[in-house]
Amino acid sequence: MRVSRFFLSTLKEAPAEAETVSHKLMLRAGLIRRLGSGLYTWMPLGLRVLRKVEAIVREEMNASGAIELLMPAVQPAELWQESGRWHEFGPLMLKIKDRHERDFCFGPTHEEVITDLARREIKSYRQLPVNFYQIQTKFRDEIRPRFGVMRAREFLMKDAYSFHADRASLEATYQQMYDTYTRIFTRLGLKFRAVAADTGAIGGSASHEFHVLADAGEDAIAFCPASDYAANVELAEAVAPSEPAAPPTQPMVKVATPDQHRVDAVAAYLGVPPQKVLKSLLVIAGNGQPFLLLLRGDHQLNEVKTSKHFAAQRGFRFASDAEVREHMGCGPGSLGPLGASVPVVADRSVLAMSDFVCGANEDGYHFTGVNFGRDLPVPETVADLRNVVAGDPSPDGKGRLEILRGIEVGHIFQLGTKYSEAMNATFLDEAGQTRVMEMGCYGIGVSRIVAAAIEQNFDERGIIFPAPMAPFQVALVALGLSRSSAVRQTAERLHAELEAAGVEVLFDDRDERPGVMFADMELIGIPHRVVVSERGLQQGTIEYQGRRDPAAQHVTVSSAVEFLKSKVCDSLARS
Amino acid sequence: MRVSRFFLSTLKEAPAEAETVSHKLMLRAGLIRRLGSGLYTWMPLGLRVLRKVEAIVREEMNASGAIELLMPAVQPAELWQESGRWHEFGPLMLKIKDRHERDFCFGPTHEEVITDLARREIKSYRQLPVNFYQIQTKFRDEIRPRFGVMRAREFLMKDAYSFHADRASLEATYQQMYDTYTRIFTRLGLKFRAVAADTGAIGGSASHEFHVLADAGEDAIAFCPASDYAANVELAEAVAPSEPAAPPTQPMVKVATPDQHRVDAVAAYLGVPPQKVLKSLLVIAGNGQPFLLLLRGDHQLNEVKTSKHFAAQRGFRFASDAEVREHMGCGPGSLGPLGASVPVVADRSVLAMSDFVCGANEDGYHFTGVNFGRDLPVPETVADLRNVVAGDPSPDGKGRLEILRGIEVGHIFQLGTKYSEAMNATFLDEAGQTRVMEMGCYGIGVSRIVAAAIEQNFDERGIIFPAPMAPFQVALVALGLSRSSAVRQTAERLHAELEAAGVEVLFDDRDERPGVMFADMELIGIPHRVVVSERGLQQGTIEYQGRRDPAAQHVTVSSAVEFLKSKVCDSLARS
Repeated sequence: MRVSRFFLSTLKEAPAEAETVSHKLMLRAGLIRRLGSGLYTWMPLGLRVLRKVEAIVREEMNASGAIELLMPAVQPAELWQESGRWHEFGPLMLKIKDRHERDFCFGPTHEEVITDLARREIKSYRQLPVNFYQIQTKFRDEIRPRFGVMRAREFLMKDAYSFHADRASLEATYQQMYDTYTRIFTRLGLKFRAVAADTGAIGGSASHEFHVLADAGEDAIAFCPASDYAANVELAEAVAPSEPAAPPTQPMVKVATPDQHRVDAVAAYLGVPPQKVLKSLLVIAGNGQPFLLLLRGDHQLNEVKTSKHFAAQRGFRFASDAEVREHMGCGPGSLGPLGASVPVVADRSVLAMSDFVCGANEDGYHFTGVNFGRDLPVPETVADLRNVVAGDPSPDGKGRLEILRGIEVGHIFQLGTKYSEAMNATFLDEAGQTRVMEMGCYGIGVSRIVAAAIEQNFDERGIIFPAPMAPFQVALVALGLSRSSAVRQTAERLHAELEAAGVEVLFDDRDERPGVMFADMELIGIPHRVVVSERGLQQGTIEYQGRRDPAAQHVTVSSAVEFLKSKVCDSLARS
Repeated sequence: MRVSRFFLSTLKEAPAEAETVSHKLMLRAGLIRRLGSGLYTWMPLGLRVLRKVEAIVREEMNASGAIELLMPAVQPAELWQESGRWHEFGPLMLKIKDRHERDFCFGPTHEEVITDLARREIKSYRQLPVNFYQIQTKFRDEIRPRFGVMRAREFLMKDAYSFHADRASLEATYQQMYDTYTRIFTRLGLKFRAVAADTGAIGGSASHEFHVLADAGEDAIAFCPASDYAANVELAEAVAPSEPAAPPTQPMVKVATPDQHRVDAVAAYLGVPPQKVLKSLLVIAGNGQPFLLLLRGDHQLNEVKTSKHFAAQRGFRFASDAEVREHMGCGPGSLGPLGASVPVVADRSVLAMSDFVCGANEDGYHFTGVNFGRDLPVPETVADLRNVVAGDPSPDGKGRLEILRGIEVGHIFQLGTKYSEAMNATFLDEAGQTRVMEMGCYGIGVSRIVAAAIEQNFDERGIIFPAPMAPFQVALVALGLSRSSAVRQTAERLHAELEAAGVEVLFDDRDERPGVMFADMELIGIPHRVVVSERGLQQGTIEYQGRRDPAAQHVTVSSAVEFLKSKVCDSLARS
């Protein structure tokens, strides 16, 4: 492909709207253009990348035995009313009325439609298991679309849905999808982790997220380098300390802490580390009862875990300042368990604290040198309430956790019978009995992968695409094309020979200044670059440089095609 | 692919909703399933067909130098307000409000979005011409969706948009698209015609439609077998008769025609052929003026031509019965030009009539033996007002017209500056002057092609797909799979060898009754079928039958793979 016949559209500066590296680079490289809030056109260059990702996803899904179909984007409201999600899904779902004032939505996901299809088409256990998938444009009306295609409203998704006669079959397909996703992200050349995840709003029993690791990732992932343990920080268990609390060494003393309301401030004021300060938070459970939560000062409350702890009380919320004063007699910056009349729930780590600081339930005062068992009873209710931090023991007992940031690009769920029960998707088993199908669902954010890959692979000059998703494998830059017939002939011949050899080559035939052409080819992230110049040809060579190479090397013109073929082959195989 | 691992879902009877052959067969063969009015899921088998059509369209578009991109389906209202089409497009456009109550639509077409992109990205004549295309799901909120995917609300379309520095460049690309479309439909193995068409609501100056020929087609096409003339009947010129009217032979007589209001009834009552009866129609022009239109009794008024005739009077409508009586003094069944006080517009053919019958402008009476020039003046205003009929002279003077029915599957337009002017899409020309871009647009109904191909290729047993779009090339049917290890071994080996040879084979391994498997494979339209049976193997043969062959032939097992490869190759090459 010649640049003169392709539509390259690079920018020197990213538009001000772009916040993240990938968003800036995708705009600068001309992969995408914004049409409206959360709406992007995939430009010719970007579409090549998107299609490569799509093709690898499709190949691996087909190889797994999943069967592709294509459901409508526009879905009738009736199915969502049947599953109970028409209102539950909330404003993220774009609702539509047609010319007859009937309700539809632009599908944010397709559990309802596929379950409807399954209950019509699947009658017998002999048709099970089956795993349907599609690769399709979805729409979610994000309240704040941002980061370009990372959190767009319209996006390309691969969504698969499997149906099963029993739980064991679901678990087998789930594992197969886990393996398929692992192959997909490996083939794409991405550094990623599969992590145990919360099942959230989609429902079901087991779930893993696949995260592309990147500093700018929205999600924190806890993983153990010594094992394969990895979990979203929302879910990772903070295990109980192995050591008990040290014996008391200090007397309990009430001290004035004027205007010191936060843990860090109190710790600094008193000259102790934050882990010596007890963090006390008043919450109101869903049934209206107040509880005082205790955490070590350097730990953060994990709201997912806390919600689960209070599941029987229908969840929790933070108390207002007025409620804090009503129940505790002071402001929220001076809370503590001593003499508190509300029930206490302590995080596991709290039980290992000794000689600690806590609020005195009196504005402007804290106690120091506090110890459980001496100054107040050891809390009876103890739970895992906090986010894990780097250095915590891994829950699998095999080492210590580290925290990485990741971008969620895949999610697999064991849904169980949530949808099939609500929508009466049944089959006849071998004994002729009617049974409800078990169901799994498996998503990949195809367009998001492009942005995630860039967040993981860039430098100050631009994108460094992993070879399997690069728009072209080789950038062929000709210097002084209009002045030198030798350059023109060599470049044209290389272009023709590389294309004939099946190498995807982008021939920069614009005859621009070298700096302009080099900058563009680096910005758009092509893995291999070859430069044809008059000076090189006088030595019988061209110049080759890999996108990550520190310097160029000279290659004889006669060996150039073989050399490039082998470089391209290596980089595609490596990923 | 094995049927046991594929999701074949055939029906004995088509659902009652299906009216046309293609709709019935697509449902019966399990290519599609209905989700809602005008909304269809493409089942695994159907999606394979759709993807083949898509791939051929893409290959030929790329070969033409067009560049693929992908625009959002959801489009902001602002662009449509700018082009003036937000209201003009009418209820066919599905309008949407997002969570912030901002107006969007689910794109029925993309002229506005691409023109917005072009005006932002194209600055210089050096970037022109360029032809962008996409293959994308569109939505049109048809008032009466019907015929399955033939007139669905959600459908897959290839839409291309070209931009040019001048008219000559637009015309060159238009011709290139004409040739590309010809290659696409030829490669798909379809009988089709390109016909001159009306530019209609999209606007612009030149336009051709591509029709797949089929008896059930919605459109009538006039074509000349002796030349390449073809036009939509709406547009085909009815040339003036070459012979003048014959001299009068009858006296004019007023006759009673009680209760005879329509041409056919009057003709039958008077014992004359309809072409001897003058058809008189009262219309009201857009400026309020009445006109009496005259046609030969066996001809039909062409409303498109008539609208063009009355363009200066802002079009026309048919007069109400009350208006007819007010202006003519009788009911609409007794109108005639004799003594009429309203201006007359005669179709060209009328001038060749002699000794004709016409209404007497008196209820229940007609004149017979009427002749222009003797009984009333020769009409001064003569125009082409009628649809051509089979046997009319071709407008190119090269023979006589025939009428065929067709299904529109492609449409190309020279838009000129309609959108680029409204949206200010300009560029700097070689002289540094700002000029408005010329624009073309080129659509193909990808999903509709599947239905159209079936309308053209079916028999009483089901679909007969042209090989290039067949879901599989070979159906491999094994009889008595569970009873005969010879059958199993041979079928498995054939399956493996055909797949290894790159032949798309569907292995019916269901071990059903022969009749069930044969019927299914014929219904779904696979071009080649091979049957492995115990009886055949005893003779060392398998049975081969092409989908259109009257009978099967025996092929030795040892030559089967080569035989089938060559059959498949032939059928793909033939189209």
